[in-house]
Amino acid sequence: MSHPKSCEIEVRVRYAECDPMGYLHHSKYFEYFEMGRTELLRLAGIRYRDLEARGVLFPVAKLECRFRRPAHYDDVLRVVTRITRQTRARIDHEYKLYRDDTLICEATSTLACVNREGQLIPIPDELMPDNEN
Amino acid sequence: MSHPKSCEIEVRVRYAECDPMGYLHHSKYFEYFEMGRTELLRLAGIRYRDLEARGVLFPVAKLECRFRRPAHYDDVLRVVTRITRQTRARIDHEYKLYRDDTLICEATSTLACVNREGQLIPIPDELMPDNEN
Amino acid sequence: MSHPKSCEIEVRVRYAECDPMGYLHHSKYFEYFEMGRTELLRLAGIRYRDLEARGVLFPVAKLECRFRRPAHYDDVLRVVTRITRQTRARIDHEYKLYRDDTLICEATSTLACVNREGQLIPIPDELMPDNEN
Amino acid sequence: MSHPKSCEIEVRVRYAECDPMGYLHHSKYFEYFEMGRTELLRLAGIRYRDLEARGVLFPVAKLECRFRRPAHYDDVLRVVTRITRQTRARIDHEYKLYRDDTLICEATSTLACVNREGQLIPIPDELMPDNEN
Repeated sequence: MSHPKSCEIEVRVRYAECDPMGYLHHSKYFEYFEMGRTELLRLAGIRYRDLEARGVLFPVAKLECRFRRPAHYDDVLRVVTRITRQTRARIDHEYKLYRDDTLICEATSTLACVNREGQLIPIPDELMPDNEN
Repeated sequence: MSHPKSCEIEVRVRYAECDPMGYLHHSKYFEYFEMGRTELLRLAGIRYRDLEARGVLFPVAKLECRFRRPAHYDDVLRVVTRITRQTRARIDHEYKLYRDDTLICEATSTLACVNREGQLIPIPDELMPDNEN
Repeated sequence: MSHPKSCEIEVRVRYAECDPMGYLHHSKYFEYFEMGRTELLRLAGIRYRDLEARGVLFPVAKLECRFRRPAHYDDVLRVVTRITRQTRARIDHEYKLYRDDTLICEATSTLACVNREGQLIPIPDELMPDNEN
Repeated sequence: MSHPKSCEIEVRVRYAECDPMGYLHHSKYFEYFEMGRTELLRLAGIRYRDLEARGVLFPVAKLECRFRRPAHYDDVLRVVTRITRQTRARIDHEYKLYRDDTLICEATSTLACVNREGQLIPIPDELMPDNEN
C-alpha cells in the first residue's frame, strides 16, 4: 500500500476546549495534531491502535508551535498534517491549522519509537516510506 | 492500618480548566473528585498506582453531580471526599466542593472493580473497611 | 423554524482522552454531550456562540451518568441527544452513547439560563419548543 | 515590590492527564507551565485574574518543548519557571520539569500582550522588571 505524505482533517472547536479569553486553549492544539497523525496513518492502511496493541508506541520527543491567530468556540478548523522526514528512529511532522484561508497556527513535532518498556526500537517496516523499500 | 472514611484536599483552579463563561468547566470537577479518591486511598497507606500495577482497576460506573455555584480561575477549592458505602463489588463516594464556606458542588459516584480484561473482580481485602476484618 | 427534539452525532475517541486503563476517561463524556447540545441547537437554526455573544448562557446545573461499557481510543461513538423537558427556566436533556449497537453510556442533564452576571433569566422565545408559541 | 525571576511549584500528575501508554500526555505539560507562570506572577504580588479583569491578556505566541523522560500518574513533579527576556511587547519564559533530580522536560514560551479585542498593547508598568523602573 502506498504511503500518503500528508492529509487534511476538519475539527470543530469544542466549548470545553476554550478558555476565559474565549480562545481555543494553546494546549488543545496538540490534540488536533495527534488526530492528524492518526488519520494520516489510517490513509496508509494502518491503525495506531493496532500498533500500540503490538507494543509499538510513538511518544512525542519534541514540539514547536507558533500561534498566529486565535481560534474560537465553534470554529471549523482544517488541520493539514505532513511528514517532513522519517528515519528508522524518528518521524518528523509539520502541521498547519487554517480557518477558511486564514493560517491560525504552524507547528512541528518529532516522534520517537519505543516498546512497552519505554526502550527505543526501530520503526517497523510497514511504516517506512515507499522509497525505502 | 486504619481506613479513614473521608479526606479533604485543596485544588487551585487552572486557567486551562475554565471555559468562555469564565467558569470551571463542569467536566473538570470529575478530575478533582478522582484526586480526592486517590488521596483518601493514600491516607489508608495504599497507592492507586500500585493497585493498577497489580491489575486491580476501579472504573466509574455511575456519577451524579449538582452544580450549586460557579467556580472561577485561580479559586482555591476544598474537595471533601467520603466513602458512604462499600461492599465486595463496589465503592460509593460522596463529594462536596467548597470555596471558603460556600458550597460549590455536591456529587456522588459508584466505582466497580475490574481486572485488566475488564472483568468484575472482588475488591481486595486490604481495601475493605476495618469493621469487615 | 421547527425545533427538532433530538439529534445524533458521531465522535471518534481521541488518544489524549483515554486514560491508563485504555478507557475513554469518564470526565470526557461530558464534552461529547455538550457537542450533542450544540448540534441539536444548530438543527434549530441557532448557534450557541451567538446566544453567548448576546449574554444568554446555559450553565449545567445537574448531571447524572451511568457508564455501561468502556469506550476506547479510535472508537467511533454515536451520541444521541434528546430534549426531555423544557420550561422558561430550564432545559433537560437525555444522552445515549453507542458503539455500533452497544450502549456505552446513558446520561441526563439540566441546564439553567443565566446572564453574564450569572443571574437567572428566562429562556429566550426562539429557544422555546414550537407547541409553546 | 521586587520581581522574582523564577519560581518552583510542585504538581502531582492526575490520572485523567495520563494516556494509554501510562504517560502524562504531552499536551498536559503546557497546563503545568501556565500554572508556573501564574505562581511566578503571584510572587510579584500580581494576580493574573486581576490583569484579565482589567483587559490585559497574555496569549501564548510560541512554544518549544523537549520531552526527555516520561512522567507517570501520581508522580510529583517540580516545575521551575524562569523569565529569560522581557520587553514592552513580549515575555519569554523557560521551564524545566523534574521528578526528584531527573529532568523530565525542557521548554520555552513567548507571550504577547493584548486587550479584550485581541489587539497588541504594551505590557503594563507594574509587570516590567525592576531594572526598567
